Amino acid sequence: MTVTDHDARGAYASPPIEPLQAPAPAARPSAAEEARTLVAGATRGTLGTLATHPPGHPFVSVTPYGVLGDGSPVLFISGMAEHTRNLDADSRASLLVAESEVPGDPLAVGRVTLLGRVEPIDGEVELAEARAAYLAANPDAAGYIDFGDFSFRRLDVDRLRWVGGFGRMAWCEATAYAGAEPDPVRPIASDAIGHLNADHSDALVAAARAFGGHPDATDARAERIDRYGIDLALETPRGTAATRVGFTTPVTDAGSLRAACIDLAKRSRESARAPQEVFDG
Amino acid sequence: MTVTDHDARGAYASPPIEPLQAPAPAARPSAAEEARTLVAGATRGTLGTLATHPPGHPFVSVTPYGVLGDGSPVLFISGMAEHTRNLDADSRASLLVAESEVPGDPLAVGRVTLLGRVEPIDGEVELAEARAAYLAANPDAAGYIDFGDFSFRRLDVDRLRWVGGFGRMAWCEATAYAGAEPDPVRPIASDAIGHLNADHSDALVAAARAFGGHPDATDARAERIDRYGIDLALETPRGTAATRVGFTTPVTDAGSLRAACIDLAKRSRESARAPQEVFDG
Repeated sequence: MTVTDHDARGAYASPPIEPLQAPAPAARPSAAEEARTLVAGATRGTLGTLATHPPGHPFVSVTPYGVLGDGSPVLFISGMAEHTRNLDADSRASLLVAESEVPGDPLAVGRVTLLGRVEPIDGEVELAEARAAYLAANPDAAGYIDFGDFSFRRLDVDRLRWVGGFGRMAWCEATAYAGAEPDPVRPIASDAIGHLNADHSDALVAAARAFGGHPDATDARAERIDRYGIDLALETPRGTAATRVGFTTPVTDAGSLRAACIDLAKRSRESARAPQEVFDG
Repeated sequence: MTVTDHDARGAYASPPIEPLQAPAPAARPSAAEEARTLVAGATRGTLGTLATHPPGHPFVSVTPYGVLGDGSPVLFISGMAEHTRNLDADSRASLLVAESEVPGDPLAVGRVTLLGRVEPIDGEVELAEARAAYLAANPDAAGYIDFGDFSFRRLDVDRLRWVGGFGRMAWCEATAYAGAEPDPVRPIASDAIGHLNADHSDALVAAARAFGGHPDATDARAERIDRYGIDLALETPRGTAATRVGFTTPVTDAGSLRAACIDLAKRSRESARAPQEVFDG
């Protein structure tokens, strides 16, 4: 379960206005799902290891990676690199993966720290899987993947710390991480947000009024979209607000995202019509 | 001194063709200068600390920073954040700063790992300096810099590991780092490279022929520019090549970069004319 244990933004920003009604319940991705999505969405992380000199000093380095089916990152590291020397002496490590840097406060960026041990990969099948996973993420490595002093390693994740920008963060255990799926919406989220905001802001306003707890919303902009719903930024006569509206069933691919948005718009219209009909009747 | 102890690219890429003549000596920034330049050129790094659970496990987190006059990074961290808990138990830390991600192999990106201890900042003057340095780098923090549970810390750098993409890397001690200057050319390097390649490729070819060891160069493109000179990618009838041409005196600002480039072009023309005059004479 995602536990909010810190809300830095709450300490300084004008708090968003309260909803006029209780918003309809809207699921969010779990910390495990957020972590899987972040790891699947990048190919470069930052590796924390323990230095050999000074011994035990934390050491941080750039690390491209690929992802195995259970979410374990695959590294491909040079025998000459500091982190390889460090890992050969002590396999304890962390891998930080962050969303691409965007303008604004870097602390608003989603990120996850995977804690575990970096282990050698043995066995023909395991090595072939590691090679395929690494190359899928790092096609530029094709030129040197079969050369010399590099070797594949796997980060066996024990637990992780996920931070979803300001205010949302959680620890999560390995089993939840391995069992979670990357969000199928993430690869198309940016396009979907652009399309919704450009062509369907009326539907977003209707959804915010019907389900977001803000029947006085005058404008709504999609800020984030995932398989479970849409985070909205709202304008109302009382000020700006933030809310979330959920899909009836989780989205599984681009096709069902479109269907989920159409369903949301339809339900919003029906909800808006219902009190009107009662009033007329 | 910069020691090249690893050349991954040499292991797999077609090696660049050899020069026909010995190139004129061309200084490069030292590892300390490269490190200061990298740290000055970013505002967000990755912090390595030692976790409190499991104890001593490396932990990696996103960290905005500012820079004091001696190159020490200033952090501004929340009492609720994992890395703060970690640092309160053990002040040993690393800060990784990398060039902005560019297309292509992430291992080609310049980066530096600063190793040291993260210490509280006391004293009115020191706190004012830290605040100013942090806000200069992170203007978005103005909204919460005077609030609640955040505090300023300074990374006292002991030593650092610099990696300049493939093939160039070095360890460097704290005194060299503190005594080095960020490269004054870096903030304008991208514009300068664009301008040189768009409008002065003839001068770059002439410089490559005169000083770069490739008198048969037919095309030259600036790849990187710093206070000491220009890295060039060349075309020759024998294949592609890479070389470097140096400035007579180190550049100190945008104005003197222009003068240094004009001087380089002038010296290249004189050098090209000299053998011709001898031949004519």
